[in-house]
Amino acid sequence: MLNFQFHTPTEFVFGRGTENLAGELVKKYGGTKVLIHYGGGSALRTGLYDKTVKSLEAAGLKHVALGGARPNPVDTLVYEGIELARREGVDFILGVGGGSAIDSSKAIAAGVPYEGDFWDFFAEKASPAKTIRLGCIVTLPATGTEGSDSAVITRSDGMLKRGMNSRFNRPLFSIMNPELTFTLPPWQTASGIADMMAHIMERYFTNTRHVDVTDRLGEALLTSIVNQAGIVMREPENYDARAEIMWAGTLAHNNLCGVGRETDFSVHKLEHELSAKWDVTHGAGLAALYPAWMQYQMPQNPMRLAQFAARVFGAEMNFEDPTVTAWDGIRRLAAFYTSIGMPVNLRELDARIGKSDIPELVAKVRRKKDGTVGSFRPLAEADLKNVFELAFDWKP
Amino acid sequence: MLNFQFHTPTEFVFGRGTENLAGELVKKYGGTKVLIHYGGGSALRTGLYDKTVKSLEAAGLKHVALGGARPNPVDTLVYEGIELARREGVDFILGVGGGSAIDSSKAIAAGVPYEGDFWDFFAEKASPAKTIRLGCIVTLPATGTEGSDSAVITRSDGMLKRGMNSRFNRPLFSIMNPELTFTLPPWQTASGIADMMAHIMERYFTNTRHVDVTDRLGEALLTSIVNQAGIVMREPENYDARAEIMWAGTLAHNNLCGVGRETDFSVHKLEHELSAKWDVTHGAGLAALYPAWMQYQMPQNPMRLAQFAARVFGAEMNFEDPTVTAWDGIRRLAAFYTSIGMPVNLRELDARIGKSDIPELVAKVRRKKDGTVGSFRPLAEADLKNVFELAFDWKP
Repeated sequence: MLNFQFHTPTEFVFGRGTENLAGELVKKYGGTKVLIHYGGGSALRTGLYDKTVKSLEAAGLKHVALGGARPNPVDTLVYEGIELARREGVDFILGVGGGSAIDSSKAIAAGVPYEGDFWDFFAEKASPAKTIRLGCIVTLPATGTEGSDSAVITRSDGMLKRGMNSRFNRPLFSIMNPELTFTLPPWQTASGIADMMAHIMERYFTNTRHVDVTDRLGEALLTSIVNQAGIVMREPENYDARAEIMWAGTLAHNNLCGVGRETDFSVHKLEHELSAKWDVTHGAGLAALYPAWMQYQMPQNPMRLAQFAARVFGAEMNFEDPTVTAWDGIRRLAAFYTSIGMPVNLRELDARIGKSDIPELVAKVRRKKDGTVGSFRPLAEADLKNVFELAFDWKP
Repeated sequence: MLNFQFHTPTEFVFGRGTENLAGELVKKYGGTKVLIHYGGGSALRTGLYDKTVKSLEAAGLKHVALGGARPNPVDTLVYEGIELARREGVDFILGVGGGSAIDSSKAIAAGVPYEGDFWDFFAEKASPAKTIRLGCIVTLPATGTEGSDSAVITRSDGMLKRGMNSRFNRPLFSIMNPELTFTLPPWQTASGIADMMAHIMERYFTNTRHVDVTDRLGEALLTSIVNQAGIVMREPENYDARAEIMWAGTLAHNNLCGVGRETDFSVHKLEHELSAKWDVTHGAGLAALYPAWMQYQMPQNPMRLAQFAARVFGAEMNFEDPTVTAWDGIRRLAAFYTSIGMPVNLRELDARIGKSDIPELVAKVRRKKDGTVGSFRPLAEADLKNVFELAFDWKP
């Protein structure tokens, strides 16, 4: 086990009706004038926006609002938010919506007190030294941004999708009401599930040994997600199943499943280029890459893949040949993706993607300084090409 | 699933050599003059005390010290600490040691700015409105106090052992170096293991339904603890196994395993009277009560006990008669306790305990307003007597 620091100061307020506590919570954390930053029309349609405003007003707080955050949120809206927050003297950003509205809120919170261009943080040219206060109301269990230290924004010019990690990115509070997820379309629900599973798997496939507690916590979450997923897909208004998925999504990405080990995150890096170019849903892009990635990584550590297969998917361990079990796990994962309507290869993901796009994708993937991606078996240029090619029409 | 709030703001700094970061961390959290509150001689013997002082001095911090916290820490030392901290103008309490030194530190931190008697907090006459800053260096994985909102102190007059829960009880930081646990005697190691398991089980046996994520996280931690326990008992200097146990002990009690459900905690209430009267080790007292408690609770929900047996101890599910599986789980738990040198009944716990003491124990156990203890199946007066009697010479 490696040394680690684990700090998750966000206050989670979870359950029915909790959106009505927004005003009280903003006040508790010292906000006086709030920028409500929300996404598309759903917050308006469902009445969540009105409830939020009412709650802020009841707490005697002033507010301004900025809507329009959309999947794969772009820098232009962030600039607009920073400008608005400065002009209006906002001291608290309240992100309302899914990962996009909240990530966009994080970027605004970091950009307001910064003299330079906020994109510096995403281009790794600078780190935030302070930000303005931030809280959120989550409506889409997927990115885990409500408890994570990361934010992802797409640069419109060149469609570069980039992440930024900072302790300031952890919201002061996150309001989570599973009822707010009842109206999510099946595609969004399933993509969210694929995304949270990926957050655990990116941390699970590691070369660090003796990480039993963290392994088992990840396996516990994955097992629960797989079991609850079937229920939420069939019964979108099942409160309890929605609640399990929502809470699992937070724990999948607050680094509970990553402490004490080297983590990989190469599949996220590969996927970012898919959603930057074709605006595909992030979780679906991850599902389309994972089986191929796992197959490609098999030689690195078949026992680790066998452990995943046995403990998460209940595959029987083949002690004579663990690669049989490992393969079984990949097939079961793919079958699970298919069962919730997720793609298992790039063809299924989006018909616009062609084999001829692969060189461009390979060229754009963000590398470490040594030119590779990930750490389980670091992917060099040729490996990236191989993984994309394998993923193109991967079959069980 | 019930609504919940989950807030664990403590910064955990985990791994080899982390005690040398004490000064830096106190400074980060705004301390300038520190009261180092430690336990018996072990902090001095192992050199931890000296390292701590050196780290504070290197950070330019002043300090005073108070030793002497012992298992089942008493109020008299807390009064002494409050007095010393006030006199010396201390603005930060650094607890160094096991649960006793840290709980005693929490009580001092709450007592310093309070005008009344700090015992008011433990007698449920008042709640802390503010406390002075608190951090810790943990040397005994057991109580989980390094990440919990609770503290337990014993009133010398009458030997009443009482707990106090408050958000202020969560340390700002907790330094956790598994190497500091290498020298723990087997009895302390095993008692710590029994204690952390109890923290999970007190939350696990619940009547709240649809708590799958939280169930599986608890089962994951219990499984890992049981597996790693054998290693640390055989190889006390096995860093990785010590690290797993140490981290599991924190997660066992930060309420990760309790969110969204009713929790029980009756076994803790019963045990407190054992350690208050005979000064037995808390974890050992819990082990001595648990098999009897589980047997007595069997009628409440045999399926829950069967789930525990199957998922934590790998017992085969008997679908025809789940009570067979449930019984198997109790026996496996008891066999595990025996394997690490823990008692499974009151006779084994301490020869001084007699059947004739039971009425006094029953009379002293702290009740809810309705006169019962716990919530899984609330224990009334007659139940308390039955559980103690069953525990007296419980056999598998």
